Amino acid sequence: MTDLQQQLAFIIEIDKLKAVYRQTTVKEDNDRYENSAEHSWHITLIAQLLKDYAEQPIDITRVVKMLLIHDIIEIDAGDLFAFAETKDHQQQALKEEQAAQRLFGLLPEAQHQEYKSLWFEFEQAETDDAQFAKGMDRILPLVQNMNNQGGSWAKHKISQAQVLARNSYLEKSAPKLWQYVVEQTELAVANGWLK
Amino acid sequence: MTDLQQQLAFIIEIDKLKAVYRQTTVKEDNDRYENSAEHSWHITLIAQLLKDYAEQPIDITRVVKMLLIHDIIEIDAGDLFAFAETKDHQQQALKEEQAAQRLFGLLPEAQHQEYKSLWFEFEQAETDDAQFAKGMDRILPLVQNMNNQGGSWAKHKISQAQVLARNSYLEKSAPKLWQYVVEQTELAVANGWLK
Repeated sequence: MTDLQQQLAFIIEIDKLKAVYRQTTVKEDNDRYENSAEHSWHITLIAQLLKDYAEQPIDITRVVKMLLIHDIIEIDAGDLFAFAETKDHQQQALKEEQAAQRLFGLLPEAQHQEYKSLWFEFEQAETDDAQFAKGMDRILPLVQNMNNQGGSWAKHKISQAQVLARNSYLEKSAPKLWQYVVEQTELAVANGWLK
Repeated sequence: MTDLQQQLAFIIEIDKLKAVYRQTTVKEDNDRYENSAEHSWHITLIAQLLKDYAEQPIDITRVVKMLLIHDIIEIDAGDLFAFAETKDHQQQALKEEQAAQRLFGLLPEAQHQEYKSLWFEFEQAETDDAQFAKGMDRILPLVQNMNNQGGSWAKHKISQAQVLARNSYLEKSAPKLWQYVVEQTELAVANGWLK
C-alpha cells in the first residue's frame, strides 16, 4: 500500500467515531446524545480560543493535534462514562492501548508513531501540553451541563467533589479557568444539579 | 462582560453546529445524516494528516483554525447542498456574511476580527492556506461517497464534471490528491454513481 492508501484507510475508519456516543447530550438537538467526533471538534476549537489562559507555555499546534486524535481509540474501546468505577477504568486503559495500536497502525509508520505517542502523552497527562489539553476535554462537559440544568450529572447523581477532581488539571494549567469551574460547581450544588 | 464570559457564550452558542445536518451520511451510524460539527472535526484531522501533499508552503496552524471555524456560520445560515443552483449560492453568501457578523461578534474584539477574517479568507479561497483548506473540505465527501456506493451523489444524480469542479482547488494546491480525485470520479462513473 502507498502512504496515501494507508492514510485513506485511516480517514475512512475514523468515520466510525461519529457512531460513538457519550453521556453528554446536545441540548440544541432535542437533547440527543453527543458523539465523540463532534465533541472532539468542540474541544479543539475551545483550546484555540482559550489558549491564553494557559499558565505555562504551551505549543497550541501539539495541543490541537492531541485533541483531534485523543478519542479515536474509542472506536474500538468505546466511551467509558467519566464517573465509572476504578476497576472499569483499569480495564478500559488496556482496551484503549490495543485500540491505539490497531487504529494508528493503519497509518504510514512515521504518522503511526507520532499519533500513538501524542495519544499516550495525552493519557499520561504529565506535560504542560497534555495537562492543558485534558483541561479542555474536561471543562466542556461542565459548560454543557451547566447550560442544561445539570445534564448528565443530575441524571447520574454526581457529586461536586467528583467534578472538581475531574477538572483538577486546570488548577495549575489554567488557574483562571479553574476558578470558573469551582464557582460553577458551587452554583450547581445550590441548584441541586450536583450532590 | 469579561473576555471569558464572551468566550463562554460563544462556546455554548456553537454547540448548535451539532444540529446542522449535511447531505452526506454516516455509513457506520445507520447511514444517518452527518452534521457540520463532526464534519469539521474530520476535515481538520485530514488536513493535519495530508499536509505534506500541499504543493505550496502552507501554515498548517492557520489551515486548522480555518477548518475548525469555517462552518460555524451555518448555525444561522444553514448548510446549502454543494450542488445547489447558482442563485441559491448567491443568497447563501449574503446570509453567511450576516451570520459571521453575529456569531464571531460574540467573541472579544481581537478574536472576533481574527476569526471573521480567517472565515472570509477561506470563503475567498485565494491564498495557499485557504485553497488547501477548501481542498480538504471537498475531498472528504468524495471519500465518503466512494465508500458508500455513491452516497449523496447517487441520490441527487450529480455528474462527474460537477464533482471535479468542486474539487478543483486540489489541482494546483495538492496535485497528487487531485490525481486521486480524478481517478475516483472515473471509477464512480463506471459504477453508475456519477453521471
